[in-house]
Amino acid sequence: MKSPILFLLLFLSIQFCVLAQEQVQRWDRFEITLAGPQNGNPFTDITLAAEFTLGTEKIRVNGFYDGGGSFKIRFMPQKTGQWKYKTISNSKVLNAKTGSFTCIEPQEGNHGPVQVADTYHFKYADGKRYYPFGTTLYAWTHQPQQLEEITLKTLENAPFNKVRMCVFPKYYSNVENEPEFYPYVKTGETKDSKGKTKFTWDLSRFDPDFFKHLEKRIDDLKTIGIEADIIIFHPYDKGHWGFDSLGKENDLRYIQYLTARLSSFRNVWWSMANEFDYIKTKPRDVWDTYTKAVVAADPYKHLCSIHNGSVYYDNWKPEFTHVSIQNGSTVEDFGRATLLRDVFFRPMIYDEVCYEGDLPQRWGHLSGEEMTAAFWHGVIAGTYVTHGETYKNAGDTIFWAKGGRLIGSSPARIGFLRKILEAAPGPLELADPWKDHQTATADSSYYLVYFGKEIKSEWTFNLPKKAGPRANRKFAVELIDTWNMAITKLPDIFETAEPTDYRIFDKNHKSIRLPARPYLALRIVEVKM
Amino acid sequence: MKSPILFLLLFLSIQFCVLAQEQVQRWDRFEITLAGPQNGNPFTDITLAAEFTLGTEKIRVNGFYDGGGSFKIRFMPQKTGQWKYKTISNSKVLNAKTGSFTCIEPQEGNHGPVQVADTYHFKYADGKRYYPFGTTLYAWTHQPQQLEEITLKTLENAPFNKVRMCVFPKYYSNVENEPEFYPYVKTGETKDSKGKTKFTWDLSRFDPDFFKHLEKRIDDLKTIGIEADIIIFHPYDKGHWGFDSLGKENDLRYIQYLTARLSSFRNVWWSMANEFDYIKTKPRDVWDTYTKAVVAADPYKHLCSIHNGSVYYDNWKPEFTHVSIQNGSTVEDFGRATLLRDVFFRPMIYDEVCYEGDLPQRWGHLSGEEMTAAFWHGVIAGTYVTHGETYKNAGDTIFWAKGGRLIGSSPARIGFLRKILEAAPGPLELADPWKDHQTATADSSYYLVYFGKEIKSEWTFNLPKKAGPRANRKFAVELIDTWNMAITKLPDIFETAEPTDYRIFDKNHKSIRLPARPYLALRIVEVKM
Repeated sequence: MKSPILFLLLFLSIQFCVLAQEQVQRWDRFEITLAGPQNGNPFTDITLAAEFTLGTEKIRVNGFYDGGGSFKIRFMPQKTGQWKYKTISNSKVLNAKTGSFTCIEPQEGNHGPVQVADTYHFKYADGKRYYPFGTTLYAWTHQPQQLEEITLKTLENAPFNKVRMCVFPKYYSNVENEPEFYPYVKTGETKDSKGKTKFTWDLSRFDPDFFKHLEKRIDDLKTIGIEADIIIFHPYDKGHWGFDSLGKENDLRYIQYLTARLSSFRNVWWSMANEFDYIKTKPRDVWDTYTKAVVAADPYKHLCSIHNGSVYYDNWKPEFTHVSIQNGSTVEDFGRATLLRDVFFRPMIYDEVCYEGDLPQRWGHLSGEEMTAAFWHGVIAGTYVTHGETYKNAGDTIFWAKGGRLIGSSPARIGFLRKILEAAPGPLELADPWKDHQTATADSSYYLVYFGKEIKSEWTFNLPKKAGPRANRKFAVELIDTWNMAITKLPDIFETAEPTDYRIFDKNHKSIRLPARPYLALRIVEVKM
Repeated sequence: MKSPILFLLLFLSIQFCVLAQEQVQRWDRFEITLAGPQNGNPFTDITLAAEFTLGTEKIRVNGFYDGGGSFKIRFMPQKTGQWKYKTISNSKVLNAKTGSFTCIEPQEGNHGPVQVADTYHFKYADGKRYYPFGTTLYAWTHQPQQLEEITLKTLENAPFNKVRMCVFPKYYSNVENEPEFYPYVKTGETKDSKGKTKFTWDLSRFDPDFFKHLEKRIDDLKTIGIEADIIIFHPYDKGHWGFDSLGKENDLRYIQYLTARLSSFRNVWWSMANEFDYIKTKPRDVWDTYTKAVVAADPYKHLCSIHNGSVYYDNWKPEFTHVSIQNGSTVEDFGRATLLRDVFFRPMIYDEVCYEGDLPQRWGHLSGEEMTAAFWHGVIAGTYVTHGETYKNAGDTIFWAKGGRLIGSSPARIGFLRKILEAAPGPLELADPWKDHQTATADSSYYLVYFGKEIKSEWTFNLPKKAGPRANRKFAVELIDTWNMAITKLPDIFETAEPTDYRIFDKNHKSIRLPARPYLALRIVEVKM
């Protein structure tokens, strides 16, 4: 949402030394543009940073070369007030530039970056709850503009508030098209004897247009309330461009450049890798180094995780704010999702649990019912689950990689669950973990019981003693059909008795008739008289 | 198995300064006895250690005061040859004593201490495989002698090769008798107005008889091939003796004393605590300190773990050799056990998964079938499970705490499984983890499939492609009835085809009729022609 004044300022930036906004909302982006040297290689020759101060607060951020003699420094103010800054550079024309701006209160729709809350959950910086309901769009920003616009339209009407997306383009089955932009300056393109294209790159020069395009798409997501879970490295290259195996020096320069550009975006999360263990050129100690480099370069400490293939990373390391797991087995039935979560004392996002679709591969052909149940199994256990769609659509825009339109049956049901969770008094936890795999609680006035595939004709009102309500509390029960997306308020009011062993029943052992359908849930809420 | 000569030497120990064996088997115990000062408090006033050398090898071990003016230093030689030693003490009469002994090859039945092997499994130091099949006998060494002897007889005929046992006595429902020995010198015993006994202790003086008794029992276990998983702290005191809350200084002195006495016992494992999180006086950082103290004082690096109540410890910390988990949920059905194991890259022992018995508490009333299935679920997933029995026997000797006789139905079945595992070519792993929850493999010539409660009338020969055999291999199949402990060799020979998607079938898609019973397994072994 750039103002016309900002565009004018950008347009005029060649003629002025320092150009920047005068006012910035809290958690919005402040940007300084400086004209600097174009000779030599500005990417590697010039160092640039700035120190921002407000009272005793002092934050140092890195700048970057944006091409055409233009240097930029970006900053996300986390406190309102008058911020001052001073640049630091090895280039005289960029050094010791000073200025200031006013950070004002955030306006509607700006809740700040998402942070960890209550050990296993999330909140925006302004305190609003954030329950991740993500989807997977690995290569959506490497598609033709028209397709990217369709994807954004789809997301606007979809239930997702997080997108897993790669910086580098993806070369994989169903995703083999060349992107419009590349992260590095291309120095050559030849075909080998087998007709396979061979690229050569100037790895000391980034292509700012690639990053400007990526940034526009991250801002597009922000506008529609979606967090960008930015995958910094991935293995889906296989020698095609070589971006997965550029060596430590180039990788660290890329991390430096990427974090200088993106740290000020409030909806950015860092995902160090997708399937880190499938990138054979990067052993574990390298991941440690890279993760530390990302965290050190990010003064705002955005959420940071690393995603596994078939072997887990050491997710307890202090750089990681949450755990991003691939393992469909954890959400395929009741009570499994919490087993892993409880190890780490951090929020758990099952970021790949297989996808709804019709691919021959077993990771790509969940039914809509299975994908939806995976979400419920995860949420009931106090964890979060990420969606992906792998139907081979007409026009071959497989959503999980390229974006486009969603045709699966799970997104609507996931949206239905999201509404239920957002209407709860707080995040869910298993009430009696390791024993009762079906009953989640937010507090002793709210329980959510999920039956999954199990078809029960009758349910006797009962709640676990652990985290259960006291005696003589009255509860109303709603029958939730998680597949047909219907909520039916039942007429009875139940009153809790003293616990019998490990359960709490209604005083008269009242029960409920249930329809003979799978995927039912019960929402049990205290009636305060 | 002390020789008559050793007894004679011990008998003469008052008149000589240094007494010790001349020959000791590798991994057996060498012991020096020294006469030293009895005045003051020898436990706290005297420091004593010895340095053992063989070639360039130099190992320092702590000594301890054993009462009656007698000081001891114990050493477990891990290399054969001529070891020399020299004592170090702040007491002149104990300092700079020298001597030597010969470490000879181990004799039959001595395989050395158990160590981690192949990331998730165990071996004895001599290379023999060790598959833990443990049981729980928390307070068996705090019982009348006759009962302890019955327990040993029971163990001699039981399938267990590990015992979880507490150093400190246990005060808990079903275990409220006073032991014959206490770890500290008792200075007073009074009854309060409610008739409750109040003890006072001299916490600066250990009672050597308590420890001698414990040591005898550990040696008794060694004689019958059982590892002693020594629980250093536990919460089952509740102010009765106060041993769970003696404060950091006393706790560290106890660790020092215990490790000086027991580190040379080759069948000792350190379990820092049972249900560490239920000992409210010891926060997490204290556990870190204590664990480091144990590991630092143990020159042989015995297996070391910490056992949780309802919250896990940070089991990835470098002091821990394996993971000792309480969580019955992990082995209650297929494929769960590996979820936690895969996090730690260490052997996983589910050391409490509830117990076979008839207590009203839910942790104490598994059926024999459930306990047996828990073992199979664990083993199939490449993990290990520990047994416990909580039937209220005639005479009130509940096995899990006091020992006595086993009356449950699971031990025989656990023994049956142990034999199957020990007959396998190596330790098991899920062949296709996270996807196929039922098929374990040792190598591509050996598969074990477990059906649990599921009753199938027919099984089409199939193995996972992942870790599966090549095409054109011939396999024989045995039907294992895990409950009735019967193995039936089936007449057919199967021949593997090329994989179809993720499975490998017989060339003619042959199948097997199965009896309509639960708890069946299949052992599928390559027939080498």
